Amino acid sequence: MHHDKDASPPPPGPVTAGDCAQLLADLRGTVPLVQCVTNAVVTNFTANVLLAIGAAPAMVDLPGEARQFAPVASGVLLNLGTPTGPQREAMLEAADAANSAGTPWVLDPVAVGFLTLRTETAATLASRRPTIIRGNASEIIALAGAGGGGRGVDSVDEPDAALDAARSLASRHGSVVAVSGAVDAIVPPSGTVVGVANGTPLLTRVTGGGCALGAVMAAFASLTPDPLLAAAAATGAYTLAAEAAAARAAGPGTFAVHFLDALAALAPDDVERGLQLQESL
Amino acid sequence: MHHDKDASPPPPGPVTAGDCAQLLADLRGTVPLVQCVTNAVVTNFTANVLLAIGAAPAMVDLPGEARQFAPVASGVLLNLGTPTGPQREAMLEAADAANSAGTPWVLDPVAVGFLTLRTETAATLASRRPTIIRGNASEIIALAGAGGGGRGVDSVDEPDAALDAARSLASRHGSVVAVSGAVDAIVPPSGTVVGVANGTPLLTRVTGGGCALGAVMAAFASLTPDPLLAAAAATGAYTLAAEAAAARAAGPGTFAVHFLDALAALAPDDVERGLQLQESL
Amino acid sequence: MHHDKDASPPPPGPVTAGDCAQLLADLRGTVPLVQCVTNAVVTNFTANVLLAIGAAPAMVDLPGEARQFAPVASGVLLNLGTPTGPQREAMLEAADAANSAGTPWVLDPVAVGFLTLRTETAATLASRRPTIIRGNASEIIALAGAGGGGRGVDSVDEPDAALDAARSLASRHGSVVAVSGAVDAIVPPSGTVVGVANGTPLLTRVTGGGCALGAVMAAFASLTPDPLLAAAAATGAYTLAAEAAAARAAGPGTFAVHFLDALAALAPDDVERGLQLQESL
Repeated sequence: MHHDKDASPPPPGPVTAGDCAQLLADLRGTVPLVQCVTNAVVTNFTANVLLAIGAAPAMVDLPGEARQFAPVASGVLLNLGTPTGPQREAMLEAADAANSAGTPWVLDPVAVGFLTLRTETAATLASRRPTIIRGNASEIIALAGAGGGGRGVDSVDEPDAALDAARSLASRHGSVVAVSGAVDAIVPPSGTVVGVANGTPLLTRVTGGGCALGAVMAAFASLTPDPLLAAAAATGAYTLAAEAAAARAAGPGTFAVHFLDALAALAPDDVERGLQLQESL
Repeated sequence: MHHDKDASPPPPGPVTAGDCAQLLADLRGTVPLVQCVTNAVVTNFTANVLLAIGAAPAMVDLPGEARQFAPVASGVLLNLGTPTGPQREAMLEAADAANSAGTPWVLDPVAVGFLTLRTETAATLASRRPTIIRGNASEIIALAGAGGGGRGVDSVDEPDAALDAARSLASRHGSVVAVSGAVDAIVPPSGTVVGVANGTPLLTRVTGGGCALGAVMAAFASLTPDPLLAAAAATGAYTLAAEAAAARAAGPGTFAVHFLDALAALAPDDVERGLQLQESL
Repeated sequence: MHHDKDASPPPPGPVTAGDCAQLLADLRGTVPLVQCVTNAVVTNFTANVLLAIGAAPAMVDLPGEARQFAPVASGVLLNLGTPTGPQREAMLEAADAANSAGTPWVLDPVAVGFLTLRTETAATLASRRPTIIRGNASEIIALAGAGGGGRGVDSVDEPDAALDAARSLASRHGSVVAVSGAVDAIVPPSGTVVGVANGTPLLTRVTGGGCALGAVMAAFASLTPDPLLAAAAATGAYTLAAEAAAARAAGPGTFAVHFLDALAALAPDDVERGLQLQESL
């Protein structure tokens, strides 16, 4: 419906704009329930992003509740931005319960590298084989053990420099690794890397601009057995909405507000028409 | 002042639009101090809603501080959205201190039913006889022991189906029970149910759309000995502001922003003219 | 560049609008990394304020991580709004680590006075000699031991009445003390008080309106050895952006959004032209 495969040119690789558009349509019909164990800074924004795109947030991050909820969740996000003691315990519970139940889950190793506590927790969680690992270049390099990490939550390495680290991490843990940047790179355990060239620098001027994408990836991962497609479709929908919001924004404040409107208004056809996929990064 | 009782038709029941309008005027003159023990996702939005309508938020949720503060608060909200260990302890402290001091308090049993920990905490708190219990249909049914609970924080039962559960809960604990829905139902321990037909579905697309209403109910409950009137007036003011915001919104992002503006701009006359009360639900 | 010293009238005192303008230019070039141990209500808004003005937020508030991060941070904010047990431990760690490393730090004693736990913690932290102490009149009076504190987080004392308390606190701890109000007063350990007459009452209608200013002060304090200048420049930039936002706002919701845009758009020239400094308060 959303694209005529016979009339289109051959797809550019293993992920097509049409597949991503279809996945957004599926999300709207399914309303995936996304459990988030995420940091205190972005929990409100993350829940609003999930609601806006058409998913249902469940910010269930307590020991006991995390284990109980992960099997009934459609997808799970574990984000290390402010990893309190109870949250670290809840993350291990949720990862194990998700793995037992077959629930897909996303790891976001926020600001790992310099800070010992979260770096150790991230390594432990990565060894549980997340469906998707999402971070900026510094975080992916640090998690792969290939570098010393970034400057707090900022990325100081270029995404291209992180590709080797992402490939290593992806193959070690059997995860798809998504590296954010001017072009977002989605790296499978083996095979072709997918690039998504959409987006706007304003996403880096709003706290949670990356973190909320992890939650959206968890929503999309519940809709397909192919986590490469899920990560690409989530990134595409997210960054296309960000582009639409940037066109109406006068700064980071209005951008964040219009971004929620744009996520809610985004149609599968917008994805099919606007998505800029790249194959060889 | 706000309405001419001689010229008006007879009031439709125990709660009138004029009474609700007067209570908003009282709130503006009193600036009630509302202590909130609430979840991490909505604490910012809840504080901003209270400030916007003209109350003073005090997000005092630590053991020790919660007990000390409840007697000087005008009203207290206990919301179970992310019930950490310290928050559960603080909620029990605040409920007992509020009861001893005669401070009205509101219980919001977020997502009870499936999750054991919060369901047990909610039952314990309900037995402390809250002034008002506020939730969606699933939560009220689950708390009343009449059903298995909803799908996380979403309501999967129709408000009408929750009326029996609300009546049972209200009579058991001597509380007014407010059930949100297309028509919000306010159920007293005995007597006539009040319906409020204002509102917009956009309130369900912003996280905290229900949670913040609980805080507003705590503010209104400090202004009158009649919790049925307090819950109805809070619901009316809140949903009328939501209608005004929806008329200006292009999506959930702009809606939330205009909602805060609309709460601040809402006049008692707007309540008297716009409130749609129903008596027999 | 930003002002012609020969053509200008003599500066009105130890802090000039030109100095404040230059410090904003320095901030944009430096992107200070600001560690925040702050309350759950305002952590999102605080991070977005820092990003908007051109600093980098790091909401690192866990024991272990707080101690590790403070020496690499440009500046540190310790805010007592919701002082959980782990946060109180992290604040002591961060204060000591900041002092050892020479990192400037700001103490915001939110709502001290009536509440025992936070009042004791604030006294302990104040004795560690913060670079800057920031609060409203009630909080400064309470921390100085000169009064009984305010009504929760609201200020019930006039800023002028707090000047004696601020002078006492400043001289006791060697800190610059900033008292918010219609005219913000910046009080050095000895010497002339600086007043900043910019601002809008809408800042008190958004939760975190004061708290986020503390984080901005920590950013500015990293740029100069003169904390009086840092506090004045931070207050000036913040309140000038607030004035610009108020001019476009229809209420507290739109104000908060435009405020972030205005912080990002604020130019050093705007500070030089618009800043209203006062010397004798």
